[in-house]
Amino acid sequence: MAVIDFDQRKKRDLVLIGRVAIDFNPNELNRTLDKVETFSMYLGGSPGNMAVGVNKLGKAVGFIGCVSDDQFGTFVLNYFKERDIDVSQMVRAKNGENMGLTFTEISSPTDSQILMYRNGVADLQIRPQDVSEEYIANSKILLISGTALATSPSREACLIAVRYAKKHHVKVIFDIDYREYTWKSKEEISIYYSLLGGMSDIVIGSREEFDLMENIPADSGIADHELAEKYMDLGNRIVIIKHGKKGSIAYTAEQQAFKVDSYHIKLLKSFGGGDAYGSAFVYGLLEGWKIEDALTYATAHAAMVVASHSCSNAMQTAEQIKGFIETHKDEKVITKLNWRDTI
Amino acid sequence: MAVIDFDQRKKRDLVLIGRVAIDFNPNELNRTLDKVETFSMYLGGSPGNMAVGVNKLGKAVGFIGCVSDDQFGTFVLNYFKERDIDVSQMVRAKNGENMGLTFTEISSPTDSQILMYRNGVADLQIRPQDVSEEYIANSKILLISGTALATSPSREACLIAVRYAKKHHVKVIFDIDYREYTWKSKEEISIYYSLLGGMSDIVIGSREEFDLMENIPADSGIADHELAEKYMDLGNRIVIIKHGKKGSIAYTAEQQAFKVDSYHIKLLKSFGGGDAYGSAFVYGLLEGWKIEDALTYATAHAAMVVASHSCSNAMQTAEQIKGFIETHKDEKVITKLNWRDTI
Amino acid sequence: MAVIDFDQRKKRDLVLIGRVAIDFNPNELNRTLDKVETFSMYLGGSPGNMAVGVNKLGKAVGFIGCVSDDQFGTFVLNYFKERDIDVSQMVRAKNGENMGLTFTEISSPTDSQILMYRNGVADLQIRPQDVSEEYIANSKILLISGTALATSPSREACLIAVRYAKKHHVKVIFDIDYREYTWKSKEEISIYYSLLGGMSDIVIGSREEFDLMENIPADSGIADHELAEKYMDLGNRIVIIKHGKKGSIAYTAEQQAFKVDSYHIKLLKSFGGGDAYGSAFVYGLLEGWKIEDALTYATAHAAMVVASHSCSNAMQTAEQIKGFIETHKDEKVITKLNWRDTI
Amino acid sequence: MAVIDFDQRKKRDLVLIGRVAIDFNPNELNRTLDKVETFSMYLGGSPGNMAVGVNKLGKAVGFIGCVSDDQFGTFVLNYFKERDIDVSQMVRAKNGENMGLTFTEISSPTDSQILMYRNGVADLQIRPQDVSEEYIANSKILLISGTALATSPSREACLIAVRYAKKHHVKVIFDIDYREYTWKSKEEISIYYSLLGGMSDIVIGSREEFDLMENIPADSGIADHELAEKYMDLGNRIVIIKHGKKGSIAYTAEQQAFKVDSYHIKLLKSFGGGDAYGSAFVYGLLEGWKIEDALTYATAHAAMVVASHSCSNAMQTAEQIKGFIETHKDEKVITKLNWRDTI
Repeated sequence: MAVIDFDQRKKRDLVLIGRVAIDFNPNELNRTLDKVETFSMYLGGSPGNMAVGVNKLGKAVGFIGCVSDDQFGTFVLNYFKERDIDVSQMVRAKNGENMGLTFTEISSPTDSQILMYRNGVADLQIRPQDVSEEYIANSKILLISGTALATSPSREACLIAVRYAKKHHVKVIFDIDYREYTWKSKEEISIYYSLLGGMSDIVIGSREEFDLMENIPADSGIADHELAEKYMDLGNRIVIIKHGKKGSIAYTAEQQAFKVDSYHIKLLKSFGGGDAYGSAFVYGLLEGWKIEDALTYATAHAAMVVASHSCSNAMQTAEQIKGFIETHKDEKVITKLNWRDTI
Repeated sequence: MAVIDFDQRKKRDLVLIGRVAIDFNPNELNRTLDKVETFSMYLGGSPGNMAVGVNKLGKAVGFIGCVSDDQFGTFVLNYFKERDIDVSQMVRAKNGENMGLTFTEISSPTDSQILMYRNGVADLQIRPQDVSEEYIANSKILLISGTALATSPSREACLIAVRYAKKHHVKVIFDIDYREYTWKSKEEISIYYSLLGGMSDIVIGSREEFDLMENIPADSGIADHELAEKYMDLGNRIVIIKHGKKGSIAYTAEQQAFKVDSYHIKLLKSFGGGDAYGSAFVYGLLEGWKIEDALTYATAHAAMVVASHSCSNAMQTAEQIKGFIETHKDEKVITKLNWRDTI
Repeated sequence: MAVIDFDQRKKRDLVLIGRVAIDFNPNELNRTLDKVETFSMYLGGSPGNMAVGVNKLGKAVGFIGCVSDDQFGTFVLNYFKERDIDVSQMVRAKNGENMGLTFTEISSPTDSQILMYRNGVADLQIRPQDVSEEYIANSKILLISGTALATSPSREACLIAVRYAKKHHVKVIFDIDYREYTWKSKEEISIYYSLLGGMSDIVIGSREEFDLMENIPADSGIADHELAEKYMDLGNRIVIIKHGKKGSIAYTAEQQAFKVDSYHIKLLKSFGGGDAYGSAFVYGLLEGWKIEDALTYATAHAAMVVASHSCSNAMQTAEQIKGFIETHKDEKVITKLNWRDTI
Repeated sequence: MAVIDFDQRKKRDLVLIGRVAIDFNPNELNRTLDKVETFSMYLGGSPGNMAVGVNKLGKAVGFIGCVSDDQFGTFVLNYFKERDIDVSQMVRAKNGENMGLTFTEISSPTDSQILMYRNGVADLQIRPQDVSEEYIANSKILLISGTALATSPSREACLIAVRYAKKHHVKVIFDIDYREYTWKSKEEISIYYSLLGGMSDIVIGSREEFDLMENIPADSGIADHELAEKYMDLGNRIVIIKHGKKGSIAYTAEQQAFKVDSYHIKLLKSFGGGDAYGSAFVYGLLEGWKIEDALTYATAHAAMVVASHSCSNAMQTAEQIKGFIETHKDEKVITKLNWRDTI
């Protein structure tokens, strides 16, 4: 039985609000950024990647966001249009704001650093008055990336989008997706994250991100399941807490807990897995699958993408993911936990 | 029976968060501001006035706010200290921000205009990290003025103050107190007002302010009682909607509604009544009175203050208000309404 | 013989560019600002006062500046219009900027402190495109107050005004008039002051202001006459260096130096004298007087204004100043110095 | 005989102040930017390129500038250090400012567009207090790029650098190098360009840039030689006005005028030639050559660089330029003009 029921009369499967960025991934690996000679350009940004991922899996996806009024903004819009991701809700920045850029340094398969361009960035210019109530009302899921909460007016665009979603019984996924840029204080981060976490149906984040949401130290002694309970009490149906290489735990409102491990594959880079994971997980939920199956697809998709040079371009079809899972069927990646187990 | 029960173990009766300003009221009346020759200086700002009012009525009051690092900031701190209003939670602005100023033009007893200085204003510089959880936990009531939501970081200071209040069962009064300055869009106003209105126990505002909170036009056709019901559903126990000279309506969670009229007195000026009203109403609630009695004190206090040259300096003692009510006992100012009645 | 020759075909005697402010002077003297109860409102700001002063002395004056789009801006425009000071070049601020305010604390006749409101101030919003070449071309003198150099776009408005003045042989008076607000560094101050000081015909300032212009310490050991020589070499005809209560020295291109002392009068306040001095000095120059006579009028006017409650309203007619000088003819206020003398 | 005499006791040949940027040039040519797949990274920015160019020609070069506090800033510093360009006067940005980026679209060999990242850019953060008087005093030439005048504090850093240069008889080259970003009005551009143009010894720019400096329209009817005369009168010894594909004219204080044409080579791209031209021209001046010879080297160097993929990496040695000139000795690129001739 599905953990979450969607209103099947809503035509669009997923609408995302937040940032699309441009990724520049180095073609020369295993060196620091200042030694790189050439970069490949890809569409990036966590919600942007997830839009591409869920679309590749065959679902109807729309995006609410602001892109630059230049060739890079055009690149993003074209990329989306060519894949039938709906751009009717995308606006162009009015005051010379640029697309965010992410230059990646791949020092080794397990180690990477990023250099972000987020000064005067277009994606944070989406305004509450740019958000259509009707558009959200006609979507099964609204996915909010926490980066979009970092400053006004994007922050208010998210808050109003969630208000519309709640009013029209649209499910809300809050992907914490913390980026240190533009936040002013720990208190500010905690205020807005916990506001969103108190209004969502699914909340996904690393343990560090949950600590930021609670404004508690790393050594608080609070267990994962206690955090899950808190956000369940506030109305969430699924809480996923990630622990990097140690895997993640998914908690459900039916009081189930699952540990999710990674497949053993040869990494090319250490990023992009999260967006692939999220895309396939959303896909599984939309398909009405059992949570174990959705999680299996999620971790398989993550494995496939971290073995590739890009995030967005490397997104896979459902058939491809299914093939991967069959090839790796000897690996057990989902383990049922007792509620209070830790990893 | 009291509409609201307070936790009597909490020692402080009221803590306010928001703005204190300096009022400059003209000594030459019935002329436009540019023809005025001399001004009298008073402490002002709605929450500042209410702090003074509730203190004058004998209650223990504290203030969370930011004042300028100059002689006017000193004026405010001294004014509070001389009256035993607790200033332990007040901070000085760090980057040259000034106290807000309000120059009033008293064109006639019923007509006045204000000229506000709100550029680079100190009161909006109160930060979430300046707000003490323990301090709020030890107060019976937290009163938030909507003006403090207009921009960061004051906005976040309010949001965290309410979070602490909810956690520690401190009653929250949301006084919408709309001022047009610094807000960026109608959507932004509505987002934050409705967030607060969904977390308070008592919400007070003019009908125009409720329309802003809902982002609905003046001719929406939505009745006052419908708005009251909405905010009751969100957890409020009292909703007060003001209609200027036509009086106000107070709705309670016991499904009672009261019309409150003004006493017939000789006006000196048309402002300051709201803060006097609020102060005496809070006093009545803290005394555990029936709502009718609290409302009678409120409207009597308002009448006394609008007959005076200042707001803060004109605040009255309980004894004085009682005397006024007795003198005017022939005037009926409270009328029980049916829930769906309009005025 | 006159030190400076004016082009008599130019119809307007003086155009000033810079700030007009509103002064609030306390009616209760000899106390700190936070103890004051009432204030009198006057037009203020150094160039504003000088416009009023020169106009009162019967000269044709125009003002280039930006005032607030509210009642205080109207107060300034009305005040000027009533006196036939030309306001055709004055603009209203477009983004809610306010008139600068100066609250004065008169602690004693010789000691005063000011509290300035300069955040988001209208006067600094005058833009280069608001400055008319033709208007400047038709004026005998352009007076620039250094405060207007403190930030863009007012800084550029001054620079273009001087460019037009040089092009059309309009004499430039640079009144350094340092105010600490809005400047970012000592280097920045020195850069723009010395640019202006290198383009003017007359430069007037306190010794402290000359030190700022040179970016040298108070104990540099550089003598006044050396500073005068430097600015003479750059093209100035008159350099006036003030030393507070010790008087001032006026240097001329004819290699003359005069010490100027104050008249012995009963002070009411310690400010406003500089603007009165400047006004009468400009008047004397325009009249073609010998510099000694212009300086005598200047110091007499200063004495008369510091004995009054306001600056602008206290400006005197030529007849009144003449009367004052005759009454005080026993006091010797002008002393011829040797060039290298110090005071 | 040399047009300009340098003080040979000064040890450093050239100090530049202004921007270094990072260029991303597309590896896929003849397509719009949004279709590009990979980019090559080079050091860029006009003064940055010229520093590299003059250094490659064997001269002692130092740079005053601000770079980002990240890997790209490190890339720039390393690039300079490896070539012995002195970085002792370079600072890191303190508030998260980024290196400027220039993405180039090479639509055809003669047509290119750029997409610049200049929001929150590090190079404009160089402050007047970062500029050492002694460092400038010990350089033969100070080269200022007009882009650095676009906003504070970089603008003031340039103004103080020129002040130091004039004081210590360091020759000043003003390369107008207009970029539309960050300027607020045409008047502002004209004010600062003409200030610099009035303090330099050599001014170089396109005719469009001279029109901006003068704030005159394209069809003003003012001839090139009139502009040259104006800037000669202000103290310049050489004025170079460029007319794109039609070549450029160099005017000298000896009343000579030379037309400079381009060599006929196969273009790869249409940018970068100016910096190569400037580098070789400065080299020729430093060598004490006749202006005709310096100009020949300049145009030869330009031809060599536009045939290459980068600007900075493509800079040539004196030997290589000499070789190019000999190979192309049949082409006449320098023509003596009459002073009033036009092209």
